[in-house]
Amino acid sequence: MAAMSEAGTRTINAYAAKAPGAPLEPYTFEAPPLPATGVEVKVTHCGLCGSDVHLWRADGDYKDFTGWAAGQKVQICGHEAVGEVTAVGSAVTHLKVGQRCGVGWQCGSCHSCEYCLRGDEQLCQAGNGVDCTCAGGNAGAFADYLRIKDAGFAFALPDALDAAATAPLLCGGQTVWTPLRQQTKAGDRVGVLGLGGLGTMAITFASKLGCEVTALSSSDSKKRAALDLGATKFVAHADEAQMAAAACSLDFILVTLATQQKVDFTKFFTLLRPRGTMCFVGMCPPISADVFTMGFTMHNITTSNTGGRKEMVEMLEFCARNKIGARVVERPLAKVNEVLAELESSKGAQRFVLTA
Amino acid sequence: MAAMSEAGTRTINAYAAKAPGAPLEPYTFEAPPLPATGVEVKVTHCGLCGSDVHLWRADGDYKDFTGWAAGQKVQICGHEAVGEVTAVGSAVTHLKVGQRCGVGWQCGSCHSCEYCLRGDEQLCQAGNGVDCTCAGGNAGAFADYLRIKDAGFAFALPDALDAAATAPLLCGGQTVWTPLRQQTKAGDRVGVLGLGGLGTMAITFASKLGCEVTALSSSDSKKRAALDLGATKFVAHADEAQMAAAACSLDFILVTLATQQKVDFTKFFTLLRPRGTMCFVGMCPPISADVFTMGFTMHNITTSNTGGRKEMVEMLEFCARNKIGARVVERPLAKVNEVLAELESSKGAQRFVLTA
Repeated sequence: MAAMSEAGTRTINAYAAKAPGAPLEPYTFEAPPLPATGVEVKVTHCGLCGSDVHLWRADGDYKDFTGWAAGQKVQICGHEAVGEVTAVGSAVTHLKVGQRCGVGWQCGSCHSCEYCLRGDEQLCQAGNGVDCTCAGGNAGAFADYLRIKDAGFAFALPDALDAAATAPLLCGGQTVWTPLRQQTKAGDRVGVLGLGGLGTMAITFASKLGCEVTALSSSDSKKRAALDLGATKFVAHADEAQMAAAACSLDFILVTLATQQKVDFTKFFTLLRPRGTMCFVGMCPPISADVFTMGFTMHNITTSNTGGRKEMVEMLEFCARNKIGARVVERPLAKVNEVLAELESSKGAQRFVLTA
Repeated sequence: MAAMSEAGTRTINAYAAKAPGAPLEPYTFEAPPLPATGVEVKVTHCGLCGSDVHLWRADGDYKDFTGWAAGQKVQICGHEAVGEVTAVGSAVTHLKVGQRCGVGWQCGSCHSCEYCLRGDEQLCQAGNGVDCTCAGGNAGAFADYLRIKDAGFAFALPDALDAAATAPLLCGGQTVWTPLRQQTKAGDRVGVLGLGGLGTMAITFASKLGCEVTALSSSDSKKRAALDLGATKFVAHADEAQMAAAACSLDFILVTLATQQKVDFTKFFTLLRPRGTMCFVGMCPPISADVFTMGFTMHNITTSNTGGRKEMVEMLEFCARNKIGARVVERPLAKVNEVLAELESSKGAQRFVLTA
């Protein structure tokens, strides 16, 4: 593949939804010329993230991040892309044509505000909108090619990483990596609530980060899988005896549930030790926080949102060094509608990855 | 006053409630011999803390900390005591008879658990119950003498401190000092919500700790007082235009409201910058926390509970060095019932201090 500095337009063959929740259809469009800061990637693998489903359906707050919100006719999902660089803009120096890279949720930021400068690009007020997210309908990675305007959000992948197993790290992985890295320390007792794609990656990360991991799931059905991933304790939280035995045992609970149902978190707070923290990273309706009772034991509620570029780079390096990858099931991109149906009906811990 | 090592019993003349909310009456009782670790203090000043009112009325969770909960017939309030040491147990080395000291909410802990050893005595699971709180009905400081079993919770007062102005620091002051000291840093933009006794002390502390302080009150009526105390900005939060102008301007909001009414905190979260924190230290019904929306800007909810011995010592030293004291109104202890009524009807920022 020849280098294409200041590359011209590109015909991109994608799968797109023409209305919220409608089946994805082949969709061809002409991408505008690549800006000097941009990068083009020939997509080989793309993870199917839970938020792709919310974007596709234009659920709740996610509707603001869709192609429709951006004034386009379709929504093209896909924001956990791995592929090969096929063109770079003239200002791009950290990537070369032919190199393997990954692109996650964010695809642009201002690089000059306080938040960008401290490495919190995900909090850039200019860079957190629909035009700075890969999933923003501009050009998601359920496609043969992906172009983003800001190559600062395309990350070279260490050679040791497997492409398919790395794709889900680029959004889901970073989403749990960031709070574990920033809000816990080795030796902490960490609970992971919800054992879907995010939860399973969180168990592995927390375990390798030196924490003692307790997996929390409604029943015992995922116990074996959780222990295999690195948890050393398991609590079926629908079982009152198991909950009572685990009372006051955790420093930190990472809530990876993605639900639109109200959940009473009172019982989960009983698992926290004094000064313990409940951290939310998934889609969840408002919770009732009993701030006065929490005060007696100095309990906290925190949140997190993907991560900055530094978290992406350190996560990828950590995964290469520790041989970490998501547990994935690969399916061809052409089968995306079947995979969407399979994802919605499955409660499995694996992540689906769509391949070219 | 002669030293009384292994002091015998002491007749104590207190003011006590015989039932929740009943007027306080003179009440004399015989305190048991002082243990080797104990201290006796002749009370010269005692702050009237909002939690004294809750203890007196046995409101909500406070009922667990009353003399009635401890199986006694009366509740003796008073847990912001300043006085003169009149006896120490044989094991006490840091205080001498004749020395001035202060005693706050807590009057005992195990000194050997993880929490005590890290300086979080207020989280000691053995030391956070009714028998380890001065207000626990054992012997509050609405009395001529106060005896506590653990002199580790009687603190020598730096000479520069005024006795009356220091009394309210011993519980109310420590309650706002601890989160400001632990959860903010110089240069932060700190909001203080609620301008009663706690809020006014918080403004002074945060200002002297190098933060930019915004006082938040429902109307402009307390603006002058807040600016005098060290705030440089003021927002009347019932005024939508003032709230809009202050949007996304604060790193930290200390919520010092003490209320049993539901409050919608949604509008206060709009004042927080990305990664901002709302910290609760007062009595407040459960709030609705929109954890998903909070996640986009990585907002947090924290709590705090008085503080450990190290916070008490560093606060007293800081106040001596910076000439900080609470704004107090002194009244004789014999007028305690009138003062209770005055406190309940006043919305003033001053703290009442009862004198011998």
